[in-house]
Amino acid sequence: MAKAVVLLSGGLDSSTVLALALEAGDEVTALSFDYGQRHSRELRSAQALAEHYGVRQVVSSLNPEIFRSSLVGEGENLPQERDPEGMAEEIPSTYVPARNIIMLSIAAGLCESLGGERIYLGANIVDYSGYPDCRPAFIAAFQEMLRQGTQAGVEGSPIKVETPIMSLSKGEIVKEALRLQVPLELTWSCYEGGEEACGVCDSCLLRLRGFQEAGAEDPLPYRRRK
Amino acid sequence: MAKAVVLLSGGLDSSTVLALALEAGDEVTALSFDYGQRHSRELRSAQALAEHYGVRQVVSSLNPEIFRSSLVGEGENLPQERDPEGMAEEIPSTYVPARNIIMLSIAAGLCESLGGERIYLGANIVDYSGYPDCRPAFIAAFQEMLRQGTQAGVEGSPIKVETPIMSLSKGEIVKEALRLQVPLELTWSCYEGGEEACGVCDSCLLRLRGFQEAGAEDPLPYRRRK
Repeated sequence: MAKAVVLLSGGLDSSTVLALALEAGDEVTALSFDYGQRHSRELRSAQALAEHYGVRQVVSSLNPEIFRSSLVGEGENLPQERDPEGMAEEIPSTYVPARNIIMLSIAAGLCESLGGERIYLGANIVDYSGYPDCRPAFIAAFQEMLRQGTQAGVEGSPIKVETPIMSLSKGEIVKEALRLQVPLELTWSCYEGGEEACGVCDSCLLRLRGFQEAGAEDPLPYRRRK
Repeated sequence: MAKAVVLLSGGLDSSTVLALALEAGDEVTALSFDYGQRHSRELRSAQALAEHYGVRQVVSSLNPEIFRSSLVGEGENLPQERDPEGMAEEIPSTYVPARNIIMLSIAAGLCESLGGERIYLGANIVDYSGYPDCRPAFIAAFQEMLRQGTQAGVEGSPIKVETPIMSLSKGEIVKEALRLQVPLELTWSCYEGGEEACGVCDSCLLRLRGFQEAGAEDPLPYRRRK
């Protein structure tokens, strides 16, 4: 049984990855972050999912001052009703500088401290929405950096970065989540908080398109649906 | 005037690097970390140095749970009275998993948020004491990772990682600090806290050897000196 750290935001992607890590038989520690997100709903979802699966969860606080992005605090407005086809063409205002780099780095520290073998990240190439820190070239560069800069790496067994849903479409991710019986009603993808998802931010649009592609019904309530 | 982030621990090396960044004319934000170090003396030194130089300081907290190391909390005993010549041969118990990786990542996030151009790190090859995350191969790999994984990198102007004292001996660093009039009495290198430095931990031994090589007197009080 290998020890692993799963980066768990509470969204559809990371929840599916958590289920995949458990299916693979890994002993999982979930790692979530409080970095001054616009809402705490996402973090509550992550906690509910960790409880559902009975895995240990570490919540790490990050100084919100570090990040300038419309996803953090009282920033600019969130993009709405964009065409999912065009999302990957530019880096949106929801890009948080170095977010995945920081989260993967802290996951690597936790993983090495625990004597673990791998980190799971729910990055996804098809729907990566223009974020540079979700692409395979970045993951490969991060992997090489871990090989050079950690004790485990120098000693020949670097911590591995696993991205099991990298090449899946959002529809395929929903199908995987259904196959794995992920409690989708506990997940949260919307960039806003509240009792209902907004239905118009990039994240809602991608999620809804995924359910549509999978021919399934999203159990979350939405304020608007196109 | 370029914006830069200087990783400032409060030790001799990072203080000298802060002075070098200011000499280069950069607009500096100092970044320090509270990660459950054995003592807060180091952090107080960092604050005193930032005040001395009149630079803005950001202190970021890191969940101590992330790190397993004799430098953090109530871990194992610190190594004492080791021969400095042998320190680089093995990774000591004071290695904190992924520490520089995490600190550089957060510095990159802060730097990109500020629209800055570079990060300064006081890593040093001659006296690197066996830490894998202080070596040039690691810095190069980290640089490449930033090129792949940040908006600045993807757009062709990646944040640069500057390590201006990488190839200096500890004696040469002390000479640089004296030339730059770094307030050495405000710095703190000892792995322990208290009013006097212990004089026997790896960090004290390297620092004292540096002053000896530079033919200078360390203004700090020591409990023991060999």
